[in-house]
Amino acid sequence: MAENTLKKTPVTLLGLGAMGAALARTWLAAGHPLTVWNRTPARAAALAADGARPAETAAEAVAANTLIIVCLLDDTSVDEVLSGIDLAGKDLVNLTTSTPAQARARAKWARERGARYLDGGIMAVPPMIGVPEAGGYVFYSGSQELFERHRETLAVPVGTTCVGEDAGFAALYDVALLSAMYGMFAGAAHSFALIRKEDIDPAALAPLLADWLIAMAPAVHQTADQLRSGDYAKGVVSNLAMQVAGTPTFLSTAEQQGVSPELLNPYFELMRRRLAEGSGEEDLTGVIDLLVR
Amino acid sequence: MAENTLKKTPVTLLGLGAMGAALARTWLAAGHPLTVWNRTPARAAALAADGARPAETAAEAVAANTLIIVCLLDDTSVDEVLSGIDLAGKDLVNLTTSTPAQARARAKWARERGARYLDGGIMAVPPMIGVPEAGGYVFYSGSQELFERHRETLAVPVGTTCVGEDAGFAALYDVALLSAMYGMFAGAAHSFALIRKEDIDPAALAPLLADWLIAMAPAVHQTADQLRSGDYAKGVVSNLAMQVAGTPTFLSTAEQQGVSPELLNPYFELMRRRLAEGSGEEDLTGVIDLLVR
Ligand SMILES: NC(=O)c1ccc[n+]([C@@H]2O[C@H](COP(=O)([O-])OP(=O)(O)OC[C@H]3O[C@@H](n4cnc5c(N)ncnc54)[C@H](OP(=O)(O)O)[C@@H]3O)[C@@H](O)[C@H]2O)c1
Ligand SMILES: NC(=O)c1ccc[n+]([C@@H]2O[C@H](COP(=O)([O-])OP(=O)(O)OC[C@H]3O[C@@H](n4cnc5c(N)ncnc54)[C@H](OP(=O)(O)O)[C@@H]3O)[C@@H](O)[C@H]2O)c1
Repeated sequence: MAENTLKKTPVTLLGLGAMGAALARTWLAAGHPLTVWNRTPARAAALAADGARPAETAAEAVAANTLIIVCLLDDTSVDEVLSGIDLAGKDLVNLTTSTPAQARARAKWARERGARYLDGGIMAVPPMIGVPEAGGYVFYSGSQELFERHRETLAVPVGTTCVGEDAGFAALYDVALLSAMYGMFAGAAHSFALIRKEDIDPAALAPLLADWLIAMAPAVHQTADQLRSGDYAKGVVSNLAMQVAGTPTFLSTAEQQGVSPELLNPYFELMRRRLAEGSGEEDLTGVIDLLVR
Repeated sequence: MAENTLKKTPVTLLGLGAMGAALARTWLAAGHPLTVWNRTPARAAALAADGARPAETAAEAVAANTLIIVCLLDDTSVDEVLSGIDLAGKDLVNLTTSTPAQARARAKWARERGARYLDGGIMAVPPMIGVPEAGGYVFYSGSQELFERHRETLAVPVGTTCVGEDAGFAALYDVALLSAMYGMFAGAAHSFALIRKEDIDPAALAPLLADWLIAMAPAVHQTADQLRSGDYAKGVVSNLAMQVAGTPTFLSTAEQQGVSPELLNPYFELMRRRLAEGSGEEDLTGVIDLLVR
């Protein structure tokens, strides 16, 4: 609410690496008073020309404002920078990449020091910051009070998606999406490898590949539906038995094209294991059960 | 051209499994005279009610028309069904899933018997046949003369995408796209496994996951561009060194969530190997080089 008045919420930002610097510029451009600190002072000095107020120490930067954004390398650097600093009454937003367990521990640590805590997982790269059409966003989880209070300020650099009260969820969603993306990239790598020795332009394959992946991605909705109902055969079109029967074609083709099957094998192996459990009529969803210990 | 006249091209279809039967119905609905044969005669008889003409033998079905579509289980069944049958002057379109090498051998085999040969790889499941909005299609490669002559007839059941003169290319593109899809599915499986023990509805993750994969899929265009130029650092945003530095977060999170890293490890391992070769400033594209022997 306070953010709707003429005065923009003042922000303190610790960490001016590639990401921190990109964030800083959007808050400055939007007229937020911005206090900055960076271990290597030159990076803070560079932003002073754009209106940022460099602080001598992290403690001084934290003392300057209520809303404190941290965007450092990793959880260890957060510990190093914030240890010994008075955080009582602060709204601490940690955009440093961490694991769910690190985020939960950091939330507890912040509460013990009298601060509200919100964890963030950035689903964007620096060139997407301040570019709404790029579609990047930050997963937030933790103090809903903090999120509501600073919602507009947080939305200045990039979109926001709040995923609940559990401080570990932002990191968990972040890692979940990026892990899936690496799977897709692994698949695409195998795909490009298959055409390597042929007279096929990779740029001829790319649009077909992109369109196909885009068309198949919504299959995750059916997976979710099957997971919720526990009925892994619900709405199945190509059952596991059929799909396992098809795997030799993929492996023979890899062999013929001189491509290592190492990126395909682990998933196929799980498909085979699930089939061996008598799940031939199901979809591929049962593979998920085999991954969880 | 002949297809624009009143008479629709007569078609012979060998194989009336789930896919063959779906194809058959679309040609019948479009008014093409259709001769069918299936090893188990009951399936052909079932289509007679819809206007198909069941043949007693595969040879009789082949003799009936010039355009012969084959949609059998695998290359071995094609061999069994067509061996000894006179194919001289026939336009043989093989929609049976095969490897590129099998398709090339089959093309040579057909040419030796005086037939034109077109190979097809079906990028659709039976419910998508006859449903243009479903977006399915068939990759075709081989005799361009055959493809041009029967273009309209072939487009009746599902879209067509012709990928050249080499009879192996349809199978290669088919396998390339499906291999990439399995990679994406593997990534999504890992993603769903990560939230298994949390109070998170899979249906809350699914739309975020689908949107993210859809947003990231076009990265393959940059990969193609880097492969063409040989400059794997071209336009890089998150370089390999940064991405490898991030992998412990993914692996620790998997560990914390009790999820096996077996679907992530092989790609991460290749990323590390490429980094060790001194390619830290590059994109992920160099992984492809490591896959090709
Ligand atoms: N860049 C991206 O594409 C991207 C995307 C999503 C999320 N993120 C996350 O955003 C965070 C920042 O990333 P970045 O790209 O800005 O990284 P970066 O360019 O490497 O910057 C790292 C920042 O952390 C500081 N730092 C490192 N160790 C420190 C320590 N021990 N004490 C004090 N400061 C320390 C650095 O200070 P110096 O200047 O003194 O070295 C610098 O400000 C990371 O958690 C990253 O995972 C980045
Ligand atoms: N279904 C899909 O989702 C899908 C998607 C893309 C591509 N495809 C490909 O399309 C082709 C057909 O698939 P489908 O789903 O129709 O399979 P299907 O339902 O299992 O039918 C297999 C067909 O092959 C025949 N057959 C098998 N072995 C034979 C033999 N030794 N001699 C003569 N006929 C034999 C069967 O005859 P009987 O009736 O006598 O058993 C039946 O007509 C396969 O290559 C498949 O990979 C299928």
